[in-house]
Amino acid sequence: MPVITIRIGKGRPIDKKRAVVEAVTKAVAETLDVKPEWVTILIEEYDRENWATGGQLHADKFGPGYGKAGVDD
Amino acid sequence: MPVITIRIGKGRPIDKKRAVVEAVTKAVAETLDVKPEWVTILIEEYDRENWATGGQLHADKFGPGYGKAGVDD
Amino acid sequence: MPVITIRIGKGRPIDKKRAVVEAVTKAVAETLDVKPEWVTILIEEYDRENWATGGQLHADKFGPGYGKAGVDD
Amino acid sequence: MPVITIRIGKGRPIDKKRAVVEAVTKAVAETLDVKPEWVTILIEEYDRENWATGGQLHADKFGPGYGKAGVDD
Amino acid sequence: MPVITIRIGKGRPIDKKRAVVEAVTKAVAETLDVKPEWVTILIEEYDRENWATGGQLHADKFGPGYGKAGVDD
Amino acid sequence: MPVITIRIGKGRPIDKKRAVVEAVTKAVAETLDVKPEWVTILIEEYDRENWATGGQLHADKFGPGYGKAGVDD
Repeated sequence: MPVITIRIGKGRPIDKKRAVVEAVTKAVAETLDVKPEWVTILIEEYDRENWATGGQLHADKFGPGYGKAGVDD
Repeated sequence: MPVITIRIGKGRPIDKKRAVVEAVTKAVAETLDVKPEWVTILIEEYDRENWATGGQLHADKFGPGYGKAGVDD
Repeated sequence: MPVITIRIGKGRPIDKKRAVVEAVTKAVAETLDVKPEWVTILIEEYDRENWATGGQLHADKFGPGYGKAGVDD
Repeated sequence: MPVITIRIGKGRPIDKKRAVVEAVTKAVAETLDVKPEWVTILIEEYDRENWATGGQLHADKFGPGYGKAGVDD
Repeated sequence: MPVITIRIGKGRPIDKKRAVVEAVTKAVAETLDVKPEWVTILIEEYDRENWATGGQLHADKFGPGYGKAGVDD
Repeated sequence: MPVITIRIGKGRPIDKKRAVVEAVTKAVAETLDVKPEWVTILIEEYDRENWATGGQLHADKFGPGYGKAGVDD
């Protein structure tokens, strides 16, 4: 009964979430031999002012808005 | 000094939260022999588009609005 | 489908764990109106050298061994 | 820079872990459009006496040893 | 590649967050001998109605608004 | 009452843990204006076979033993 948490930058549309939970559930079920219906996934979204690497907020590093311009958050 | 995290579907009113933290604190204090004042509880609420079981978002499974119509999220 | 995490000091016997999951599941199910079978509980145990309050490891504050001598960890 | 946590029952061999992190990283990278090298995965393993559903420890429900006899933990 | 989570009461301005991630990254890098750029920090903010100690919500204990009037949340 | 979680590679001696909790508590207390005694820190240690980046276990990337040879885990 795996419980998966996915922490990502805030702002992705629901179709991306739909795609990631489907793909991750399949990946976990197949590699760990559990039934897909036993896999729980929780998505936790973080504002860029709540995520930092190297001591710097991502809001300062990448700008405040969410976007895909070369930024993998 | 137990630290308890309760992850639930988003949308319960404050009186439900009041009731659950009181009841869980009592349950933990009595069974683990710790003083109630040492028990910390954090409630984490998830949108249905951030919770999935069986590879399907709860927003798709149960509809977008929070409600109690037979759904235990 | 609440997911509860209980973080406690390491070393309690299984009967204490049995008691706490039973009592907490009941508390959550009754106050949040979910079926008990939908409640998942994860217990995470911490060595005293991995828990600190006030900047001091509990191993230093309370001694290395687990025990109930007035210590609520 | 997604951070993924996979919580599972304790006892899988390293090749299962190798397979799951490879498959989940691929699933996340493809569906969320992030580079695979930015995906971090943490596996957290739980003893059956630290995991409960429906108010009952999995050690009591499924027996103490880890095994695949129809049990998806 | 330490991953740090900081759980705090909701409402601090961005300059406080900027200060805490800078100071914590420095503290971790120096004491654990890792490069600062390998340190990830996630800030998780909690409403007072989602945080309880001693079985009482902080919203009830301290009032609903965030403020510093002697309250360390 | 900040609750801090520090996730690191397994194997550091207790004096490193002592140093990191002292330094992080000071950093948090000073930048967020909370009393040091309200800061709780939990250290979570991960085996290299339970930590992966880029889809590869650190046990495979860096070898099974913990060590500081240029590896920041």
